[in-house]
Amino acid sequence: MLTLYYMPHSCALASHIVLEEVGAGYRSVLVDFRKEQQRKPEYLAVNPKGRVPALATGRGVLTETPAILAFLAQSFPEAGLAPLDDPFAFAELQAVNSYLCSTLHVAHAHRMRGYRWADDPAAIAEMKRKAPQAVGEAFALVERELFRGPWVLGERYTICDPYLFTLAQWLEADGVDPAGLPKVAEHRRRMAERPAVRRALAAELAPAD
Amino acid sequence: MLTLYYMPHSCALASHIVLEEVGAGYRSVLVDFRKEQQRKPEYLAVNPKGRVPALATGRGVLTETPAILAFLAQSFPEAGLAPLDDPFAFAELQAVNSYLCSTLHVAHAHRMRGYRWADDPAAIAEMKRKAPQAVGEAFALVERELFRGPWVLGERYTICDPYLFTLAQWLEADGVDPAGLPKVAEHRRRMAERPAVRRALAAELAPAD
Repeated sequence: MLTLYYMPHSCALASHIVLEEVGAGYRSVLVDFRKEQQRKPEYLAVNPKGRVPALATGRGVLTETPAILAFLAQSFPEAGLAPLDDPFAFAELQAVNSYLCSTLHVAHAHRMRGYRWADDPAAIAEMKRKAPQAVGEAFALVERELFRGPWVLGERYTICDPYLFTLAQWLEADGVDPAGLPKVAEHRRRMAERPAVRRALAAELAPAD
Repeated sequence: MLTLYYMPHSCALASHIVLEEVGAGYRSVLVDFRKEQQRKPEYLAVNPKGRVPALATGRGVLTETPAILAFLAQSFPEAGLAPLDDPFAFAELQAVNSYLCSTLHVAHAHRMRGYRWADDPAAIAEMKRKAPQAVGEAFALVERELFRGPWVLGERYTICDPYLFTLAQWLEADGVDPAGLPKVAEHRRRMAERPAVRRALAAELAPAD
Protein backbone atom coordinates (compact mmCIF):
# COMPACT_ATOMS: atom_id res chain seq x y z
CA MET A 1 0.00 0.00 0.00
CA LEU A 2 1.33 3.43 -0.97
CA THR A 3 0.69 6.55 1.13
CA LEU A 4 0.72 10.00 -0.44
CA TYR A 5 1.35 12.97 1.84
CA TYR A 6 -0.19 16.07 0.27
CA MET A 7 -1.47 19.57 0.78
CA PRO A 8 -4.35 20.80 -1.45
CA HIS A 9 -3.34 23.27 -4.18
CA SER A 10 0.29 22.11 -3.98
CA CYS A 11 2.36 20.27 -6.57
CA ALA A 12 1.43 17.02 -4.78
CA LEU A 13 -1.64 17.04 -7.05
CA ALA A 14 0.51 15.69 -9.91
CA SER A 15 1.41 12.57 -7.91
CA HIS A 16 -2.21 12.25 -6.76
CA ILE A 17 -3.47 12.26 -10.36
CA VAL A 18 -0.88 9.70 -11.48
CA LEU A 19 -1.80 7.39 -8.58
CA GLU A 20 -5.38 7.54 -9.88
CA GLU A 21 -4.32 7.09 -13.51
CA VAL A 22 -2.36 3.90 -12.80
CA GLY A 23 -5.02 2.44 -10.50
CA ALA A 24 -2.63 2.08 -7.57
CA GLY A 25 -3.84 1.01 -4.15
CA TYR A 26 -3.04 4.00 -1.96
CA ARG A 27 -4.24 6.23 0.82
CA SER A 28 -3.65 9.95 1.12
CA VAL A 29 -2.70 11.90 4.23
CA LEU A 30 -3.26 15.65 4.52
CA VAL A 31 -0.25 17.64 5.72
CA ASP A 32 -2.01 20.83 6.75
CA PHE A 33 0.27 23.77 5.99
CA ARG A 34 -2.28 26.10 7.63
CA LYS A 35 -1.40 24.35 10.90
CA GLU A 36 2.35 24.23 10.02
CA GLN A 37 2.15 20.43 10.14
CA GLN A 38 4.93 20.19 7.54
CA ARG A 39 7.36 21.48 10.19
CA LYS A 40 6.19 19.19 13.01
CA PRO A 41 8.45 16.32 14.18
CA GLU A 42 5.84 13.75 13.09
CA TYR A 43 6.07 14.86 9.47
CA LEU A 44 9.80 15.60 9.47
CA ALA A 45 10.26 11.93 10.43
CA VAL A 46 8.54 11.10 7.11
CA ASN A 47 10.19 13.81 5.02
CA PRO A 48 13.04 15.79 6.59
CA LYS A 49 12.63 18.44 3.87
CA GLY A 50 9.30 19.51 5.36
CA ARG A 51 7.69 19.62 1.93
CA VAL A 52 5.09 17.74 -0.04
CA PRO A 53 4.68 15.45 -1.86
CA ALA A 54 6.13 12.43 -0.12
CA LEU A 55 5.20 8.89 -1.12
CA ALA A 56 5.66 6.19 1.51
CA THR A 57 6.23 2.74 0.02
CA GLY A 58 7.02 -0.67 1.49
CA ARG A 59 10.72 0.09 0.97
CA GLY A 60 10.89 3.67 2.20
CA VAL A 61 9.79 7.19 1.45
CA LEU A 62 10.24 8.91 -1.91
CA THR A 63 10.23 12.67 -2.44
CA GLU A 64 10.50 15.10 -5.37
CA THR A 65 7.73 15.12 -7.96
CA PRO A 66 9.87 14.10 -10.99
CA ALA A 67 11.19 11.08 -9.05
CA ILE A 68 7.76 10.02 -7.77
CA LEU A 69 6.11 10.34 -11.19
CA ALA A 70 8.81 8.28 -12.93
CA PHE A 71 8.60 5.70 -10.11
CA LEU A 72 4.86 5.29 -10.64
CA ALA A 73 5.28 5.03 -14.42
CA GLN A 74 7.94 2.33 -13.96
CA SER A 75 6.01 0.49 -11.24
CA PHE A 76 2.83 0.34 -13.30
CA PRO A 77 4.18 -0.16 -16.82
CA GLU A 78 0.83 -1.43 -18.11
CA ALA A 79 -0.53 2.12 -17.72
CA GLY A 80 1.85 3.25 -20.45
CA LEU A 81 2.60 6.64 -18.89
CA ALA A 82 6.25 6.85 -20.03
CA PRO A 83 8.40 5.51 -22.88
CA LEU A 84 10.26 3.12 -20.59
CA ASP A 85 12.11 1.20 -23.30
CA ASP A 86 13.57 4.22 -25.11
CA PRO A 87 16.26 6.13 -23.17
CA PHE A 88 16.14 9.14 -25.50
CA ALA A 89 12.35 9.50 -25.35
CA PHE A 90 12.44 8.94 -21.59
CA ALA A 91 15.07 11.69 -21.30
CA GLU A 92 12.87 14.08 -23.27
CA LEU A 93 10.10 13.36 -20.77
CA GLN A 94 12.46 13.89 -17.86
CA ALA A 95 13.73 17.15 -19.33
CA VAL A 96 10.17 18.52 -19.37
CA ASN A 97 9.49 17.45 -15.79
CA SER A 98 12.85 18.81 -14.63
CA TYR A 99 12.08 22.17 -16.22
CA LEU A 100 8.64 22.26 -14.60
CA CYS A 101 10.25 21.47 -11.23
CA SER A 102 13.39 23.60 -11.23
CA THR A 103 12.36 26.61 -13.35
CA LEU A 104 8.58 26.94 -13.57
CA HIS A 105 7.67 25.86 -10.04
CA VAL A 106 10.63 27.83 -8.68
CA ALA A 107 9.43 31.00 -10.45
CA HIS A 108 6.00 30.44 -8.86
CA ALA A 109 7.53 29.96 -5.41
CA HIS A 110 8.85 33.52 -5.49
CA ARG A 111 5.28 34.84 -5.18
CA MET A 112 4.55 33.20 -1.82
CA ARG A 113 7.81 31.87 -0.44
CA GLY A 114 10.39 34.55 -1.12
CA TYR A 115 11.54 34.18 2.50
CA ARG A 116 13.54 31.18 1.33
CA TRP A 117 15.96 33.48 -0.48
CA ALA A 118 15.68 36.84 1.33
CA ASP A 119 14.84 38.23 4.77
CA ASP A 120 14.20 41.89 3.94
CA PRO A 121 10.43 42.40 3.47
CA ALA A 122 11.08 44.84 0.62
CA ALA A 123 13.05 42.19 -1.29
CA ILE A 124 10.34 39.61 -0.66
CA ALA A 125 7.75 42.09 -1.96
CA GLU A 126 9.88 42.74 -5.04
CA MET A 127 10.04 39.00 -5.83
CA LYS A 128 6.28 38.84 -5.48
CA ARG A 129 5.91 41.77 -7.85
CA LYS A 130 8.05 40.13 -10.51
CA ALA A 131 6.53 36.63 -10.15
CA PRO A 132 3.93 37.14 -12.91
CA GLN A 133 6.73 37.95 -15.37
CA ALA A 134 9.00 35.07 -14.31
CA VAL A 135 6.15 32.54 -14.26
CA GLY A 136 4.78 33.92 -17.53
CA GLU A 137 8.13 33.57 -19.28
CA ALA A 138 8.51 29.97 -18.10
CA PHE A 139 5.02 29.10 -19.32
CA ALA A 140 5.71 30.89 -22.61
CA LEU A 141 8.69 28.62 -23.17
CA VAL A 142 6.48 25.59 -22.49
CA GLU A 143 3.86 26.92 -24.93
CA ARG A 144 6.38 27.80 -27.65
CA GLU A 145 9.07 25.10 -27.36
CA LEU A 146 8.09 22.14 -25.21
CA PHE A 147 4.38 21.46 -25.79
CA ARG A 148 3.79 19.24 -28.83
CA GLY A 149 0.05 18.50 -28.62
CA PRO A 150 -2.41 17.07 -28.11
CA TRP A 151 -0.43 15.99 -25.04
CA VAL A 152 2.77 17.52 -23.75
CA LEU A 153 4.97 15.00 -25.57
CA GLY A 154 2.71 14.48 -28.58
CA GLU A 155 0.25 11.67 -29.25
CA ARG A 156 1.00 9.85 -26.02
CA TYR A 157 -0.43 10.85 -22.63
CA THR A 158 2.43 10.69 -20.12
CA ILE A 159 3.40 11.73 -16.59
CA CYS A 160 4.28 15.17 -17.99
CA ASP A 161 0.59 15.94 -18.46
CA PRO A 162 -0.58 15.80 -14.84
CA TYR A 163 2.49 17.82 -13.83
CA LEU A 164 1.87 20.62 -16.34
CA PHE A 165 -1.84 20.60 -15.42
CA THR A 166 -0.96 20.94 -11.73
CA LEU A 167 1.26 23.98 -12.26
CA ALA A 168 -1.25 25.51 -14.69
CA GLN A 169 -3.80 25.49 -11.85
CA TRP A 170 -1.89 28.45 -10.43
CA LEU A 171 -1.83 30.67 -13.54
CA GLU A 172 -4.48 33.17 -12.48
CA ALA A 173 -3.21 33.39 -8.90
CA ASP A 174 0.28 33.99 -10.29
CA GLY A 175 -1.05 36.88 -12.37
CA VAL A 176 -0.54 35.19 -15.75
CA ASP A 177 -3.34 35.47 -18.32
CA PRO A 178 -4.10 32.00 -19.76
CA ALA A 179 -5.35 33.71 -22.95
CA GLY A 180 -1.71 34.24 -23.89
CA LEU A 181 -1.05 30.50 -23.59
CA PRO A 182 -3.67 28.86 -25.84
CA LYS A 183 -2.09 25.40 -25.92
CA VAL A 184 -1.54 25.28 -22.17
CA ALA A 185 -5.05 26.59 -21.50
CA GLU A 186 -6.72 24.09 -23.84
CA HIS A 187 -4.66 21.27 -22.32
CA ARG A 188 -5.79 22.37 -18.86
CA ARG A 189 -9.47 22.26 -19.93
CA ARG A 190 -9.05 18.80 -21.46
CA MET A 191 -7.13 17.46 -18.47
CA ALA A 192 -9.85 18.66 -16.07
CA GLU A 193 -12.33 16.31 -17.78
CA ARG A 194 -10.31 13.14 -17.20
CA PRO A 195 -11.88 10.87 -14.57
CA ALA A 196 -8.56 10.40 -12.76
CA VAL A 197 -8.08 14.16 -12.50
CA ARG A 198 -11.62 14.64 -11.22
CA ARG A 199 -11.11 11.95 -8.59
CA ALA A 200 -7.80 13.40 -7.39
CA LEU A 201 -9.18 16.93 -7.18
CA ALA A 202 -12.32 15.75 -5.39
CA ALA A 203 -10.26 13.79 -2.86
CA GLU A 204 -7.99 16.75 -2.11
CA LEU A 205 -10.80 19.26 -1.77
CA ALA A 206 -13.18 17.08 0.27
CA PRO A 207 -13.83 18.33 3.81
CA ALA A 208 -11.51 16.66 6.33
CA ASP A 209 -13.31 14.14 8.53
CA MET B 1 28.61 11.13 -31.74
CA LEU B 2 27.35 13.18 -28.82
CA THR B 3 28.06 16.91 -28.45
CA LEU B 4 28.09 18.56 -25.04
CA TYR B 5 27.54 22.32 -24.89
CA TYR B 6 29.12 23.65 -21.71
CA MET B 7 30.49 26.65 -19.87
CA PRO B 8 33.36 26.11 -17.40
CA HIS B 9 32.38 26.30 -13.71
CA SER B 10 28.73 25.62 -14.59
CA CYS B 11 26.59 22.59 -13.75
CA ALA B 12 27.48 21.20 -17.21
CA LEU B 13 30.53 19.72 -15.48
CA ALA B 14 28.34 16.90 -14.12
CA SER B 15 27.40 15.79 -17.64
CA HIS B 16 31.00 16.20 -18.75
CA ILE B 17 32.23 13.88 -15.99
CA VAL B 18 29.60 11.25 -16.74
CA LEU B 19 30.50 11.31 -20.45
CA GLU B 20 34.05 10.53 -19.37
CA GLU B 21 32.96 7.87 -16.87
CA VAL B 22 30.94 5.91 -19.44
CA GLY B 23 33.59 6.23 -22.14
CA ALA B 24 31.23 7.84 -24.62
CA GLY B 25 32.43 9.18 -27.94
CA TYR B 26 31.71 12.90 -27.72
CA ARG B 27 32.99 16.35 -28.44
CA SER B 28 32.47 19.42 -26.30
CA VAL B 29 31.57 22.93 -27.43
CA LEU B 30 32.21 25.97 -25.27
CA VAL B 31 29.25 28.35 -24.91
CA ASP B 32 31.07 31.41 -23.66
CA PHE B 33 28.85 33.24 -21.20
CA ARG B 34 31.45 36.03 -20.99
CA LYS B 35 30.56 36.80 -24.62
CA GLU B 36 26.82 36.21 -23.99
CA GLN B 37 26.94 33.36 -26.49
CA GLN B 38 24.14 31.58 -24.66
CA ARG B 39 21.74 34.29 -25.83
CA LYS B 40 22.87 34.32 -29.47
CA PRO B 41 20.58 32.89 -32.19
CA GLU B 42 23.13 30.19 -33.01
CA TYR B 43 22.91 28.73 -29.53
CA LEU B 44 19.20 29.38 -29.02
CA ALA B 45 18.67 27.16 -32.08
CA VAL B 46 20.35 24.38 -30.09
CA ASN B 47 18.74 25.16 -26.73
CA PRO B 48 15.93 27.74 -26.66
CA LYS B 49 16.36 28.04 -22.89
CA GLY B 50 19.73 29.76 -23.35
CA ARG B 51 21.31 27.61 -20.66
CA VAL B 52 23.87 24.85 -20.36
CA PRO B 53 24.22 21.93 -20.44
CA ALA B 54 22.72 20.75 -23.70
CA LEU B 55 23.57 17.36 -25.19
CA ALA B 56 23.08 16.96 -28.93
CA THR B 57 22.43 13.38 -29.97
CA GLY B 58 21.59 11.69 -33.26
CA ARG B 59 17.89 12.02 -32.37
CA GLY B 60 17.82 15.56 -31.03
CA VAL B 61 18.97 17.79 -28.21
CA LEU B 62 18.53 16.97 -24.53
CA THR B 63 18.62 19.53 -21.72
CA GLU B 64 18.38 19.53 -17.91
CA THR B 65 21.12 17.83 -15.92
CA PRO B 66 18.95 15.17 -14.22
CA ALA B 67 17.58 14.11 -17.63
CA ILE B 68 20.99 14.03 -19.32
CA LEU B 69 22.62 12.07 -16.49
CA ALA B 70 19.87 9.42 -16.46
CA PHE B 71 20.04 9.23 -20.27
CA LEU B 72 23.77 8.51 -20.16
CA ALA B 73 23.31 5.90 -17.41
CA GLN B 74 20.61 4.17 -19.47
CA SER B 75 22.52 4.45 -22.76
CA PHE B 76 25.69 2.96 -21.27
CA PRO B 77 24.29 0.35 -18.88
CA GLU B 78 27.62 -1.51 -18.73
CA ALA B 79 29.04 1.45 -16.77
CA GLY B 80 26.66 0.60 -13.93
CA LEU B 81 26.00 4.23 -12.97
CA ALA B 82 22.36 3.76 -11.93
CA PRO B 83 20.16 0.94 -10.57
CA LEU B 84 18.26 0.60 -13.85
CA ASP B 85 16.34 -2.56 -12.98
CA ASP B 86 14.96 -1.38 -9.64
CA PRO B 87 12.30 1.38 -9.89
CA PHE B 88 12.48 2.21 -6.18
CA ALA B 89 16.27 2.51 -6.09
CA PHE B 90 16.19 4.49 -9.34
CA ALA B 91 13.62 6.83 -7.79
CA GLU B 92 15.86 7.37 -4.77
CA LEU B 93 18.64 8.36 -7.16
CA GLN B 94 16.31 10.66 -9.06
CA ALA B 95 15.09 12.26 -5.82
CA VAL B 96 18.66 13.23 -4.95
CA ASN B 97 19.34 14.68 -8.40
CA SER B 98 16.03 16.52 -8.41
CA TYR B 99 16.86 18.08 -5.03
CA LEU B 100 20.30 19.12 -6.25
CA CYS B 101 18.70 20.69 -9.34
CA SER B 102 15.61 22.39 -7.95
CA THR B 103 16.69 23.34 -4.41
CA LEU B 104 20.47 23.37 -4.06
CA HIS B 105 21.38 24.78 -7.48
CA VAL B 106 18.47 27.23 -7.25
CA ALA B 107 19.72 28.50 -3.87
CA HIS B 108 23.15 29.03 -5.46
CA ALA B 109 21.64 30.88 -8.43
CA HIS B 110 20.38 33.60 -6.08
CA ARG B 111 23.96 34.74 -5.51
CA MET B 112 24.70 35.62 -9.15
CA ARG B 113 21.42 35.53 -11.03
CA GLY B 114 18.91 37.23 -8.77
CA TYR B 115 17.76 39.27 -11.79
CA ARG B 116 15.71 36.25 -12.79
CA TRP B 117 13.32 36.91 -9.91
CA ALA B 118 13.67 40.64 -9.15
CA ASP B 119 14.55 43.90 -10.93
CA ASP B 120 15.26 46.17 -7.96
CA PRO B 121 19.03 46.20 -7.30
CA ALA B 122 18.41 46.27 -3.55
CA ALA B 123 16.39 43.06 -3.74
CA ILE B 124 19.05 41.42 -5.90
CA ALA B 125 21.67 42.43 -3.34
CA GLU B 126 19.53 41.01 -0.53
CA MET B 127 19.30 37.64 -2.32
CA LYS B 128 23.06 37.65 -2.72
CA ARG B 129 23.46 38.40 0.98
CA LYS B 130 21.27 35.47 1.99
CA ALA B 131 22.72 32.97 -0.52
CA PRO B 132 25.33 31.55 1.91
CA GLN B 133 22.53 30.68 4.34
CA ALA B 134 20.21 29.17 1.70
CA VAL B 135 23.00 27.19 0.03
CA GLY B 136 24.37 26.14 3.41
CA GLU B 137 21.00 24.83 4.56
CA ALA B 138 20.56 22.82 1.36
CA PHE B 139 24.03 21.29 1.72
CA ALA B 140 23.35 20.60 5.40
CA LEU B 141 20.32 18.55 4.40
CA VAL B 142 22.47 16.61 1.93
CA GLU B 143 25.10 16.02 4.63
CA ARG B 144 22.57 15.00 7.30
CA GLU B 145 19.84 13.17 5.39
CA LEU B 146 20.79 12.23 1.84
CA PHE B 147 24.47 11.27 1.82
CA ARG B 148 25.00 7.62 2.74
CA GLY B 149 28.70 7.10 2.09
CA PRO B 150 31.14 6.27 0.76
CA TRP B 151 29.18 7.44 -2.28
CA VAL B 152 26.01 9.51 -2.27
CA LEU B 153 23.75 6.46 -2.48
CA GLY B 154 25.97 4.09 -0.51
CA GLU B 155 28.35 1.46 -1.80
CA ARG B 156 27.61 2.13 -5.44
CA TYR B 157 29.08 5.04 -7.41
CA THR B 158 26.24 6.57 -9.43
CA ILE B 159 25.31 9.64 -11.47
CA CYS B 160 24.50 11.41 -8.19
CA ASP B 161 28.20 11.62 -7.36
CA PRO B 162 29.39 13.81 -10.25
CA TYR B 163 26.36 16.06 -9.72
CA LEU B 164 27.04 16.60 -6.00
CA PHE B 165 30.74 17.10 -6.75
CA THR B 166 29.89 19.74 -9.37
CA LEU B 167 27.73 21.78 -7.00
CA ALA B 168 30.26 21.35 -4.18
CA GLN B 169 32.82 23.11 -6.40
CA TRP B 170 30.99 26.32 -5.59
CA LEU B 171 30.96 26.06 -1.77
CA GLU B 172 33.65 28.61 -1.01
CA ALA B 173 32.42 31.09 -3.62
CA ASP B 174 28.93 30.73 -2.15
CA GLY B 175 30.29 31.60 1.28
CA VAL B 176 29.73 28.16 2.81
CA ASP B 177 32.52 26.67 4.95
CA PRO B 178 33.21 23.06 3.86
CA ALA B 179 34.46 22.33 7.38
CA GLY B 180 30.81 22.21 8.47
CA LEU B 181 30.10 19.53 5.85
CA PRO B 182 32.66 16.78 6.53
CA LYS B 183 31.01 14.09 4.39
CA VAL B 184 30.48 16.40 1.43
CA ALA B 185 34.04 17.77 1.73
CA GLU B 186 35.62 14.31 1.94
CA HIS B 187 33.53 13.16 -1.03
CA ARG B 188 34.72 16.19 -2.99
CA ARG B 189 38.37 15.36 -2.28
CA ARG B 190 37.87 11.72 -3.29
CA MET B 191 35.95 12.64 -6.45
CA ALA B 192 38.70 15.03 -7.55
CA GLU B 193 41.11 12.09 -7.75
CA ARG B 194 39.04 10.05 -10.20
CA PRO B 195 40.58 9.95 -13.68
CA ALA B 196 37.26 10.81 -15.36
CA VAL B 197 36.88 13.88 -13.16
CA ARG B 198 40.44 15.01 -13.86
CA ARG B 199 39.88 14.62 -17.61
CA ALA B 200 36.60 16.56 -17.58
CA LEU B 201 38.07 19.40 -15.50
CA ALA B 202 41.19 19.56 -17.65
CA ALA B 203 39.12 19.71 -20.83
CA GLU B 204 36.91 22.51 -19.52
CA LEU B 205 39.76 24.59 -18.19
CA ALA B 206 42.11 24.18 -21.18
CA PRO B 207 42.79 27.39 -23.11
CA ALA B 208 40.46 27.75 -26.10
CA ASP B 209 42.18 27.21 -29.42
